[in-house]
Amino acid sequence: MLDVDPFYIPNLGDMYAARERITPYVHRTPVLTSRFINELTGAELFFKCENLQKAGAFKARGASNAVFSLTDEQAAKGVATHSSGNHGTCLSYAAGRRGIPCTVVMPRTAPQAKKDAVKGYGGRVVECEPSTSSREAVFAEVVAESGAEFVHPYNDWRVIAGQATCSAELIEQVEGLDAVVAPIGGGGMISGTCLTLSNLAPKTRIYAAEPLNADDAARSFRAGRIIADDAPNTVADGLKVPLKELTWHFVRNNVSDILTATEDEIVEAMKLIWKRMKIVMEPSSAVPLATILKNRDLFAGKRVGLIITGGNVDLDKLPWN
Amino acid sequence: MLDVDPFYIPNLGDMYAARERITPYVHRTPVLTSRFINELTGAELFFKCENLQKAGAFKARGASNAVFSLTDEQAAKGVATHSSGNHGTCLSYAAGRRGIPCTVVMPRTAPQAKKDAVKGYGGRVVECEPSTSSREAVFAEVVAESGAEFVHPYNDWRVIAGQATCSAELIEQVEGLDAVVAPIGGGGMISGTCLTLSNLAPKTRIYAAEPLNADDAARSFRAGRIIADDAPNTVADGLKVPLKELTWHFVRNNVSDILTATEDEIVEAMKLIWKRMKIVMEPSSAVPLATILKNRDLFAGKRVGLIITGGNVDLDKLPWN
Repeated sequence: MLDVDPFYIPNLGDMYAARERITPYVHRTPVLTSRFINELTGAELFFKCENLQKAGAFKARGASNAVFSLTDEQAAKGVATHSSGNHGTCLSYAAGRRGIPCTVVMPRTAPQAKKDAVKGYGGRVVECEPSTSSREAVFAEVVAESGAEFVHPYNDWRVIAGQATCSAELIEQVEGLDAVVAPIGGGGMISGTCLTLSNLAPKTRIYAAEPLNADDAARSFRAGRIIADDAPNTVADGLKVPLKELTWHFVRNNVSDILTATEDEIVEAMKLIWKRMKIVMEPSSAVPLATILKNRDLFAGKRVGLIITGGNVDLDKLPWN
Repeated sequence: MLDVDPFYIPNLGDMYAARERITPYVHRTPVLTSRFINELTGAELFFKCENLQKAGAFKARGASNAVFSLTDEQAAKGVATHSSGNHGTCLSYAAGRRGIPCTVVMPRTAPQAKKDAVKGYGGRVVECEPSTSSREAVFAEVVAESGAEFVHPYNDWRVIAGQATCSAELIEQVEGLDAVVAPIGGGGMISGTCLTLSNLAPKTRIYAAEPLNADDAARSFRAGRIIADDAPNTVADGLKVPLKELTWHFVRNNVSDILTATEDEIVEAMKLIWKRMKIVMEPSSAVPLATILKNRDLFAGKRVGLIITGGNVDLDKLPWN
């Protein structure tokens, strides 16, 4: 099932190859600024808007890189993943662009909108029970039947190399960044950011931002080993998953610190961005600004990039309503 | 009080002068696209995102042009207007950039958020009763006291020349547009669009989009004279005001047609844009897409620019909640 080497650490050459490969399928997203939020934080902030990315999330980058790096023979059998979040949608998007099958295994309890998003790009949803054992059993069956290539949401070097293209754009769009802050869940975006910046902008510090209610990465960082939580509960629903071997490698070696924010702080930062910057983004994407607002001394006077990771939010259930 | 000639029709030279004058104070806003919405409409749509403009609306263009075209002597006395919408906020923004006083007369019943927006940029709010007679009396008093320059929200050639810079950018950003659709209220944006396109892109057809519940412009267009409604009621609250002499000139001479949409169609189009394009915009800004969705034959196969006029919406009172 796994043709991809699970222990390979992607490098800068992989990022450049990814960039060339995925350029026709992803947007070079804009960088937005807000004078108001700059004054509030005392920092100069640059928001890299991956909510405006294809399929509404940065995960279109990694998914496209995985899908378009398959041989024709592999590709014919399709791709598969288990994800009830943006990775499933984005893998379906990328597979659709290549014209190959995509199967996403999701708990039957996942929101209908998430299932519709996968189907909207032509993917197939296979439901499992909402448990790890059921998910693994159903997923194994899907792969055995189809021979589809498994594309993990983040612990996959092709995916990390794809996500790494985001900060490669950012440092072309904004010069002299003192720091970049990105949300951390499984660590795919942070790993890609580390890959690129540690090579191309080694003076730029990298901070990961995490909900306090799902602070397994922060605790892992301090403990020096991966700590996984069981079903954490946070409004930032993209950030509940634990680190894995590949992402832990980058976090341990290249991240300056992992900062946390409470649920209220996340929602407040989210509303501030919607109100002032006029963009629709997910709670997960608000965690970086939430941590900057509460760590003023760390960022004041600095030029700071923030990754707005995605915009797929249920407009009927906004967290401030 | 009125130093500005109320009958002067601005021309292309005025637009170019405005563009040079306001460039330091306004954004060159991005143009966004959505493959999904293109497929839905059968047209190729280009959304000019003035919701991402300074102060959250295209009106920052016209207000900046008026403010920065004042002599130092005039400017010292400040500017004044009556507006409970984006014009008041944007005039306050522009005056703040020049460092001169700005007074906005608003009904005491106007939403607190609107008053706060004016104050947030340093402007002064003077309240009147919610009636035309009270507004006129209070406004006359403000001007008599201060000698402030009146900047009308749209029936002012400096304002129209400023709004005209928006479509000048658009036709640089997108080549070969068959049509541009912009919302119509008082007609400032449409007039600016007519000014620029009739000169620089005469083959591009100009459509105005209006709520059916406030279709005074559409009825004026058919009747051949200005018809004003008394207090129309629509979710598109930026589009309730009537045409005036200057804007009527452009509407009558350069607009191909005025299309209307119902309240439900407007809200549906608004939600579609939020969901698919991940931007926060006002109900008024959704009227163009609403009219394109219901006039499919008119736009299918065409390259169409839409002006997303503003993003100042109350996040606690979204029209689908």
